[in-house]
Amino acid sequence: MKGAFALKGNFAYTPACGQLALKPHGILVYEDGRVTGLFDGLPERFKGLPVEDFGDKLILPGLVDLHAHAGQYAYRGLGMDMELLSWLEHTAFPEESKFSDLAYAQEAYSVFVQALARSATTRACLFATLHRPATLALMEMLDQAGMRCFVGKVNMDRNSPDILGETTAQSLAETRLWLEQSAGLAHVKPILTPRFIPSCTDELMAGLGRIQREFALPAQSHLSENLSEVSWVAQLCPNARFYGDAYDQYGLFGGDCPTVMAHCVWSGPEERALMKERGVFIAHCPQSNMNVSSGIAPVKGFLLEGQRVGLGSDVAGGAHLSIFRAITDAIQCSKLRWRLVDQELSALTLPEALYMATKGGGAFFGQVGSFEPGYELDAVVMDDSALPTPRPCTLAERVERVVYLSDGQPCAKYVAGRRLF
Amino acid sequence: MKGAFALKGNFAYTPACGQLALKPHGILVYEDGRVTGLFDGLPERFKGLPVEDFGDKLILPGLVDLHAHAGQYAYRGLGMDMELLSWLEHTAFPEESKFSDLAYAQEAYSVFVQALARSATTRACLFATLHRPATLALMEMLDQAGMRCFVGKVNMDRNSPDILGETTAQSLAETRLWLEQSAGLAHVKPILTPRFIPSCTDELMAGLGRIQREFALPAQSHLSENLSEVSWVAQLCPNARFYGDAYDQYGLFGGDCPTVMAHCVWSGPEERALMKERGVFIAHCPQSNMNVSSGIAPVKGFLLEGQRVGLGSDVAGGAHLSIFRAITDAIQCSKLRWRLVDQELSALTLPEALYMATKGGGAFFGQVGSFEPGYELDAVVMDDSALPTPRPCTLAERVERVVYLSDGQPCAKYVAGRRLF
Repeated sequence: MKGAFALKGNFAYTPACGQLALKPHGILVYEDGRVTGLFDGLPERFKGLPVEDFGDKLILPGLVDLHAHAGQYAYRGLGMDMELLSWLEHTAFPEESKFSDLAYAQEAYSVFVQALARSATTRACLFATLHRPATLALMEMLDQAGMRCFVGKVNMDRNSPDILGETTAQSLAETRLWLEQSAGLAHVKPILTPRFIPSCTDELMAGLGRIQREFALPAQSHLSENLSEVSWVAQLCPNARFYGDAYDQYGLFGGDCPTVMAHCVWSGPEERALMKERGVFIAHCPQSNMNVSSGIAPVKGFLLEGQRVGLGSDVAGGAHLSIFRAITDAIQCSKLRWRLVDQELSALTLPEALYMATKGGGAFFGQVGSFEPGYELDAVVMDDSALPTPRPCTLAERVERVVYLSDGQPCAKYVAGRRLF
Repeated sequence: MKGAFALKGNFAYTPACGQLALKPHGILVYEDGRVTGLFDGLPERFKGLPVEDFGDKLILPGLVDLHAHAGQYAYRGLGMDMELLSWLEHTAFPEESKFSDLAYAQEAYSVFVQALARSATTRACLFATLHRPATLALMEMLDQAGMRCFVGKVNMDRNSPDILGETTAQSLAETRLWLEQSAGLAHVKPILTPRFIPSCTDELMAGLGRIQREFALPAQSHLSENLSEVSWVAQLCPNARFYGDAYDQYGLFGGDCPTVMAHCVWSGPEERALMKERGVFIAHCPQSNMNVSSGIAPVKGFLLEGQRVGLGSDVAGGAHLSIFRAITDAIQCSKLRWRLVDQELSALTLPEALYMATKGGGAFFGQVGSFEPGYELDAVVMDDSALPTPRPCTLAERVERVVYLSDGQPCAKYVAGRRLF
């Protein structure tokens, strides 16, 4: 049982969507890179195992951020008085162009990686920028920090400003070089990242489709985020039946290639049917959808129809990296959607949103996001003693308070069985 | 010039709605309990004045919370999966009943007052509970902490559970005793607080109207928060033309009696016209309106028609006491309202929401919430060095980052010219 150990504390997790499982004063046993089980007391056969005792603190699965732009963390909370396409033009694109300077990129990514490592997030799907050297630097920093992430060098060869563009040939060649140069990293892996359809020519998409099949890579992009964007895609791709079809025509929409699509605020029935058929993951990013005035995705509907859904911070469309914040944003937005748009879809509950933030998004990484036997061990220990109240709280109430009120910083964090702090 | 001093730093404030005024490396002079002016350098005639130099930090007007329930802070972030009337029945009312125990109330209010004093809020309109001794204890604690607040003993004599009710006679007698006993406080003042129409009989409202005129008291309550509540009021008050009219019939709707009404999510044209005519303040509480599924108030419309609007945390319908959070919630909700409900009303901008959080709500307290000459000095000093970015930021961008990203805790705070920390 080399490397085996046990954790002691108050466990909370969601084995199924909407189901909050609690194990007060429980003991989790971890062996051979997987959770063996969660017990009321340490079973006889594990006597002698080292036990890390977190007393009365809460232990939750590590949170999963299915969509964030590492290269945008430097300007989170800025330019928020703009809608998506203006914000891209006036804030995001000029800022991302700075990442051609490797020294700037290293400084910016160092701030981002420190914040991510300190947060309750253990896994993330990240956009870098189009710049290969900066993307590699980000991947190395994340790997060294012990994070498990998919990171994408962004591809974009049209509708981009001069300061932030690449030709189709450059984009494809740089992508191949990036894949070669990032192959040695242990825990941080590449993910194909066409920015979104308006930024990618058909030729680029076709080339990325070939690379995807050659290297068996996962993919990430944006889908049906904003109404102006959806109309633009319809103009750009007259042969696509709907936005998602423009990815699917190049094989970049799930199926053999695990794919995560951010937003899906305005996905219609056909697009949703294809997402389900292809097993496409939806990264729901409620704060970003508010900040850039996109709308509210019908997340409860996604869950009811059996879509695979996780949460994303979408920094810097979202200003906050905390996935606890994404949980409460998702719940709050779902309540407004119920009230203002569609009373047929009830609001999300805390156990549903917590599920999306852990096991829902975690599935993109394998058996991640739960404390069930066989799962990898991603865990965050939350100390709620800094949230004083005169009121005695049950364990379920303590979980709700941590999600709504904590600053999102765990006091201990395990990623794939390794304690980071 | 006894008690006069100067503050040095980077000032930002909103002299008019939507107008962000900046004075980088400015000097504010304070004399005789009022701001004398904000200068580029210390004018000759003030040489020798003690200067508190905050270097490169930001100095903003203290924030104003126009609506919060001090007695609900103990259970903020709990029971959030319920709508308003259920949440009142299952969470708020049982919890408030505990405040009949003065020792419990002292413990709970001590936690609340510490959090409020530490926050960027300098003025607040607060609901206590119906319990007179606990309400007096809260007022004394706030007074000692140096906060300037209006606090209300809650009145409620119908549709309340047995554990949290009072008869009409009790409610009126206790109110008079509370006014007598709180008369000696220097900075914390009483405000008449009928809970909301469903909780108050006509007889109680008539009695409160008499007390209001006798003592020239301000008043606070709830208005048109939630559709179920609005229908209930229509049933309860068949003679009222609309919800606000049910207050107005007893003289408790502005005019001679400065009044703040929380929410106004569903106020119709007649109600809005009367609010404007009577100068009623609207406390916009976006987070609470999300949490209890109320909807989104047409705040931009309120501003355009010249209503008096401030922001409220509405703890514990809102989970967070921070008015910075209320600013961003207000902006985000206004974007969703634009997108989903009414594209005629554009989204709120940061300078509009910051205005509501300072000068807009501050007007309820007099000349409060700005750094213009003649204003009382409420100021918070914000240190944004804990929000690292590799990107140089303008002063306006630093303000936006503090509002969106800071933990809401100033490093120095002045209330009515007195430095609290």
